[in-house]
Amino acid sequence: MIVVMKPQASNEDVKHVVKLVNDFGLKENIIYGTDRTVIACIGDKRHVEKSAIENAGNVEKVVPILAPYKLASREVVKEKTAIRIGPEKFPLGGSKVGVIAGPCAVEDLDQVLKTAEKVKEAGCIGLRGGAFKPRTSPYSFQGMKYEGLEILAKAREKTGLAIVTEVVSLDNVDAVAQTADVLQVGARNMQHYPLLEALGKVNKPVLLKRGLCSRLDEFLLAAEYIINAGNKQVIMCERGIRTYEEYVRNTLPLASIPALNERTHLPIVVDPSHGTGHSYMVAPMCRAAVAAGADGLLVECHLDPEHALSDGAQSITPNALKEMVQSVTKIAETLGRSV
Amino acid sequence: MIVVMKPQASNEDVKHVVKLVNDFGLKENIIYGTDRTVIACIGDKRHVEKSAIENAGNVEKVVPILAPYKLASREVVKEKTAIRIGPEKFPLGGSKVGVIAGPCAVEDLDQVLKTAEKVKEAGCIGLRGGAFKPRTSPYSFQGMKYEGLEILAKAREKTGLAIVTEVVSLDNVDAVAQTADVLQVGARNMQHYPLLEALGKVNKPVLLKRGLCSRLDEFLLAAEYIINAGNKQVIMCERGIRTYEEYVRNTLPLASIPALNERTHLPIVVDPSHGTGHSYMVAPMCRAAVAAGADGLLVECHLDPEHALSDGAQSITPNALKEMVQSVTKIAETLGRSV
Amino acid sequence: MIVVMKPQASNEDVKHVVKLVNDFGLKENIIYGTDRTVIACIGDKRHVEKSAIENAGNVEKVVPILAPYKLASREVVKEKTAIRIGPEKFPLGGSKVGVIAGPCAVEDLDQVLKTAEKVKEAGCIGLRGGAFKPRTSPYSFQGMKYEGLEILAKAREKTGLAIVTEVVSLDNVDAVAQTADVLQVGARNMQHYPLLEALGKVNKPVLLKRGLCSRLDEFLLAAEYIINAGNKQVIMCERGIRTYEEYVRNTLPLASIPALNERTHLPIVVDPSHGTGHSYMVAPMCRAAVAAGADGLLVECHLDPEHALSDGAQSITPNALKEMVQSVTKIAETLGRSV
Amino acid sequence: MIVVMKPQASNEDVKHVVKLVNDFGLKENIIYGTDRTVIACIGDKRHVEKSAIENAGNVEKVVPILAPYKLASREVVKEKTAIRIGPEKFPLGGSKVGVIAGPCAVEDLDQVLKTAEKVKEAGCIGLRGGAFKPRTSPYSFQGMKYEGLEILAKAREKTGLAIVTEVVSLDNVDAVAQTADVLQVGARNMQHYPLLEALGKVNKPVLLKRGLCSRLDEFLLAAEYIINAGNKQVIMCERGIRTYEEYVRNTLPLASIPALNERTHLPIVVDPSHGTGHSYMVAPMCRAAVAAGADGLLVECHLDPEHALSDGAQSITPNALKEMVQSVTKIAETLGRSV
Repeated sequence: MIVVMKPQASNEDVKHVVKLVNDFGLKENIIYGTDRTVIACIGDKRHVEKSAIENAGNVEKVVPILAPYKLASREVVKEKTAIRIGPEKFPLGGSKVGVIAGPCAVEDLDQVLKTAEKVKEAGCIGLRGGAFKPRTSPYSFQGMKYEGLEILAKAREKTGLAIVTEVVSLDNVDAVAQTADVLQVGARNMQHYPLLEALGKVNKPVLLKRGLCSRLDEFLLAAEYIINAGNKQVIMCERGIRTYEEYVRNTLPLASIPALNERTHLPIVVDPSHGTGHSYMVAPMCRAAVAAGADGLLVECHLDPEHALSDGAQSITPNALKEMVQSVTKIAETLGRSV
Repeated sequence: MIVVMKPQASNEDVKHVVKLVNDFGLKENIIYGTDRTVIACIGDKRHVEKSAIENAGNVEKVVPILAPYKLASREVVKEKTAIRIGPEKFPLGGSKVGVIAGPCAVEDLDQVLKTAEKVKEAGCIGLRGGAFKPRTSPYSFQGMKYEGLEILAKAREKTGLAIVTEVVSLDNVDAVAQTADVLQVGARNMQHYPLLEALGKVNKPVLLKRGLCSRLDEFLLAAEYIINAGNKQVIMCERGIRTYEEYVRNTLPLASIPALNERTHLPIVVDPSHGTGHSYMVAPMCRAAVAAGADGLLVECHLDPEHALSDGAQSITPNALKEMVQSVTKIAETLGRSV
Repeated sequence: MIVVMKPQASNEDVKHVVKLVNDFGLKENIIYGTDRTVIACIGDKRHVEKSAIENAGNVEKVVPILAPYKLASREVVKEKTAIRIGPEKFPLGGSKVGVIAGPCAVEDLDQVLKTAEKVKEAGCIGLRGGAFKPRTSPYSFQGMKYEGLEILAKAREKTGLAIVTEVVSLDNVDAVAQTADVLQVGARNMQHYPLLEALGKVNKPVLLKRGLCSRLDEFLLAAEYIINAGNKQVIMCERGIRTYEEYVRNTLPLASIPALNERTHLPIVVDPSHGTGHSYMVAPMCRAAVAAGADGLLVECHLDPEHALSDGAQSITPNALKEMVQSVTKIAETLGRSV
Repeated sequence: MIVVMKPQASNEDVKHVVKLVNDFGLKENIIYGTDRTVIACIGDKRHVEKSAIENAGNVEKVVPILAPYKLASREVVKEKTAIRIGPEKFPLGGSKVGVIAGPCAVEDLDQVLKTAEKVKEAGCIGLRGGAFKPRTSPYSFQGMKYEGLEILAKAREKTGLAIVTEVVSLDNVDAVAQTADVLQVGARNMQHYPLLEALGKVNKPVLLKRGLCSRLDEFLLAAEYIINAGNKQVIMCERGIRTYEEYVRNTLPLASIPALNERTHLPIVVDPSHGTGHSYMVAPMCRAAVAAGADGLLVECHLDPEHALSDGAQSITPNALKEMVQSVTKIAETLGRSV
């Protein structure tokens, strides 16, 4: 942590800040510059509530130096982690790129079984599908809930695909953990810390979606909550952020892939369906994500998108899925990876 | 809902969309323009998953017409709602502007009692203070939890102030509801729908903070969740949004006050502490919020901000609080209101 | 400037950075922390292209310390500057709050003269009106240009109001400077540096609008360009920024007022017309701006907003202007200022 | 254009709006819905200042239907345009992907000649380099100006590369047009309309960078300005937008590539140097851009990035450039294209 004093700061002001720094258990190192005095603070600073010092007289700003996360960091685990999912232990991360596809919401048994077969056929490793649905409006379809979980289990039985489904609340962690192979945390819940802590006690991989306007540090700290509570199997999922852009549902910032690869050992999956909101953009952005170094893709696929109960506009058909996987496979190969 | 076709759309394309529209239980009204054909859809459209139609051939876009909320809307309740809080039933809304102040976090009994007295003295109606704290880092101070609630209850006993405190999770709704006079939903939980539904069953006012990057519609739909589940006492709280701005913790968009006043009957409170992140900005933004028509203010106040366990940079001292309330009172009076 | 090394940085890496720092004419001060080594760089750093150092091996980040502007800064001029505008030398800044109003575009002589009288009557000090109009579409009305300037001059003659009008391009600086009392730089031109330099040679006040997504530093550096080229009379104008918000044309971040007051001695004017885009929001946001400490207001006012050739939705009528000025006057008085 | 009335709108209100609509030369089509009345307006609406209608009584909102641009639109030119650049007429667009690389700024003759050779060797078709530099700070290096243009001309002579360089102001359009093969409009100037109009009269391709926070419509309207003034050779360049993200200089939204491909026939180039700000992200984002369908890349390359006079942090070395081009070539081939 670096404390920058204002130009008019007196010796007394500097002394006062040094005292505060010492109160926090840190040692000071004072640097007298040509325009400003700067106080570098030495010690383990992750626990310090640094903002308080900003309130001291003639402090201009307080600049953090350390990344606030540890367990999710590549400083601690140098090699990328590969996480194995589903009954067939498909790897996500390492030399393999995995595709997970399926409907936004579980609508009925027949739909899910048919979709699962198409998803399997296209070369995917996982089936996504929401049983519990967090919806912006109380009047929208809220999901089939527990019945939906049973349907997903049947699809796994038939296809061997890993089941990826969302857990929306503390009170259904157990139920979802029993059925799902991967527990998804939705973007709206990325900072619901009690849920993250509960997932830290589950012995299954967690797919953590980036919050709608989360910073990378916050995203990694959310992973840190899960790891810190006991579960190391965290998959980071970039799904787009909210910006002023009007031609997409969300802006999909693929530079987060190299940025995360630099900072964390955890595998990175991209969701171009939520990341764009329009089916015609899904395939190009899947290709781009893999070209940028993603370890996996999460894609909405529906047998009849025009009649989907949710997210129809961003769902692709099984045929489009197949073509996309073929195209992505070729790109992965140019990078020495396989799908 | 309006469906706009692409210029190259054929009669068949239009017919296909009309069929989809009818499938959703809506009637169509086709308008042939000079460049494009447009299909206006008539009927109650709040339940329709309109995005699906976007996937039909040669559809350019789907434009919603209806606001998606009802119960929170001024179309349903024309007059502004005044909500009464605390043992002394202080009104928020109507001709009264109410100030709620207190520390970010409950740190100990002595701190809270002393602060409460200062807050009362300054002319406030409520005491804020977090017992359960949602923190970005798992390594930060997480609050005193149940013990914190007891401390807050003692402060109410002594001062008569309404206690405003956050409920962070489904499993502490009951405990918080027993002690608090107003249950606060934090910005990170604005779209945690199971929590909103649980609060719909509580018979106490809920202060709902706007999510970090929520649209106004989403904010109002979050209120709609609570009202729809049975609790009409919702207070909307603007606390700033995340933008590219670098000199503030959040950007505080005060135009949301007239915008909300236009759309909803619910009272509106502004939190300039989180809304700016810097103590020197709190008083000017409190004045601005009241000048723009806010019904209340939520302010962080700490006896010794430099040593606060959280949010020190944005907390003001009791003296600064007193001056701020005096200044805000004068502005309220120019608008025919009192504090 | 502070250079933060990665944890794995070797002594050689640190030495290499020190050499680079010295190449830039700076002295180094090395701080060995518990997790990282940090190199503080001492000397006048405003001219250094610091980003280059980021490319050296095992550098994590480079943190600037100094504000990049000088002449616009309160470090250089401690007292707020009052700038006098128009034939009657009305002051903007200091204890006076000034209102400037008028149509978005000059449409014809009659319109401008009538509006000017209403503007004068309402208690304003300046008349705004665009003769040269930068329009997003090449097919929109582009302004009356030189004829428009003559019309504005006639309105000044009749009313004594200061004329505020936009200069859109290098090749009309002279013409605008001859007629206008205040030369406005539009948001889209805030970083058109050749124009700023040309305005530095004009002996009239410049009203500089904040760019659509400019940081505060960039806004102040734009002012610095003008002052550095010879013209100290710069008025800063907050007119809203682009964010994801959908209910306003722009998000109006009023915390920029205290932030600018902290950083610069230049007067600050707010434009709630562009800052919101909707006429019903203009009065509340004018009140809020003055309550937050603005030195002036810039407002679009049209005799018949429904038929305005541009910006009709955000223009208020002369009657609404009058009421707004009265309301704002009362608020200014509670702060010891007058309009 | 669709005008949506408020629920309480009377017949008189509707009649009044119909009159306004007719005043604008449009025909009305009134639709009485279950909750609201909607007025569809028929006719050529590109010239109408639609916002004015919003001011009429009980109008809720005005929704535009038509895209505001024509000449840049795929509705007018169905096939993608390939633009040929430089003395060797390299195509940009169509089946070819072209790479343009070079230093941010022209620093001296030797640097530029050496870099040009490396750029040529790596398989690029163009050399970029700024002679005129728009810099955020008046104290930064402002470019070698006319001397810089001469240096670039020498590099072309030696290598046959197309010269891409920025024109920053009306008064150097002629000089730049004489030397450059492609005239670049910087992001800050995307809405400097007098400059766009001047470039419409030049008989050379223009590379138009997307503004820092421009909407897609605004970006296309800027191209429309140039085409409308007479120059059809416009290359669209995505270079990232400003968002709240902190780990990049700009957020690079690659979904703009399929979105632009849907809307316009003009070729699309991506600049991952400005689009990310960090050299380690450049190669992954180049790959992603080509995978998403970009027609070209614009990359900053410097012989010694650590000592670059500007943009050092985001410049890659000639070796890294070579590897990147090889990697991108393989990806282009999987899509049936060549570099």
